[in-house]
Amino acid sequence: MARPSDAKQRMIDTASDLFRRRGYHGVGLAELLAESGAPKGSFYHHFPAGKEALAVEVLAHAGGQMNGLIDHCFTTTDAIQPAIALICEKIARLSERSDFEIACPVVAIASDTAAVSQTLRKAAADQFRNWTDTVARHARRLGASAAEADMLAQDLLVALEGAWLVAKIYRSADPIRRIPERFKT
Amino acid sequence: MARPSDAKQRMIDTASDLFRRRGYHGVGLAELLAESGAPKGSFYHHFPAGKEALAVEVLAHAGGQMNGLIDHCFTTTDAIQPAIALICEKIARLSERSDFEIACPVVAIASDTAAVSQTLRKAAADQFRNWTDTVARHARRLGASAAEADMLAQDLLVALEGAWLVAKIYRSADPIRRIPERFKT
Repeated sequence: MARPSDAKQRMIDTASDLFRRRGYHGVGLAELLAESGAPKGSFYHHFPAGKEALAVEVLAHAGGQMNGLIDHCFTTTDAIQPAIALICEKIARLSERSDFEIACPVVAIASDTAAVSQTLRKAAADQFRNWTDTVARHARRLGASAAEADMLAQDLLVALEGAWLVAKIYRSADPIRRIPERFKT
Repeated sequence: MARPSDAKQRMIDTASDLFRRRGYHGVGLAELLAESGAPKGSFYHHFPAGKEALAVEVLAHAGGQMNGLIDHCFTTTDAIQPAIALICEKIARLSERSDFEIACPVVAIASDTAAVSQTLRKAAADQFRNWTDTVARHARRLGASAAEADMLAQDLLVALEGAWLVAKIYRSADPIRRIPERFKT
């Protein structure tokens, strides 16, 4: 029998995948339980506040993975432009591997809930801030001024989120792969 | 009594507003009928294929309005940079006036349906192509090469969609107002 922590993580992973395909409102609790193989009692044991509490954990988990990807790309390349190119290439491949059905986990949950749930909106904003903090920290380390690093981080966030969505709608990773060209200095 | 065409347009307007707040899956048919004041029979008279058919008309209507906004901004300013600045300022104000609850109608419908409805995905992609065609046409008219005009149009689409979403999640129009700076030549 799986340990409780495994069951909880499986619910988070299942929800992350489904939310990214159809948004927060496009996935019902019954489907989440069926897909993750979790009994209803187990679900409410781990997430007493229900689906919204699950989404908060998905945001933290998937947002943390994205933050790790960004950090890894900067650490591996140790230069701003190659790091941006590597981040974009990795996200382009994620998009392609899902047959363009999966986009950003934070946007998937927050875009259709931000107007009705301050909890989810703030949890999403926290993840965005983590990512831009990571980009800006590395950019400063690699020679950018504080103002340049902040602008780079904000612009990269906007470009990546826009391109990831357009890629889903066009079924093409081209918009993501075109980003690095715009960030050449 | 309202003419039938008014009733249909009211359903489209109501659906557009609600989808932009909570996404396609976040709005049920019962709520659409209640908010637009349409009886169920009238709804199925205008949209025999149901909610998806309504969403297709919302995409065409709201996408056409956005295309008109873009065209108006280029015609009014008759120069590329001021046109981009005006488009961004208008979208920033739309975002603020809705208290950041309403974002792009095309993304609102397509982001959580593109993986499950080719009809909605293609209707959304058609709107994006209309907008980028309009931007590219004006950019060429104002002196850009065909390649420059196409790149400008694609990059502006990605930046606007990303910024509009980030604005909703941050509850701030700053990401939208920062776009023109990146498009200075």
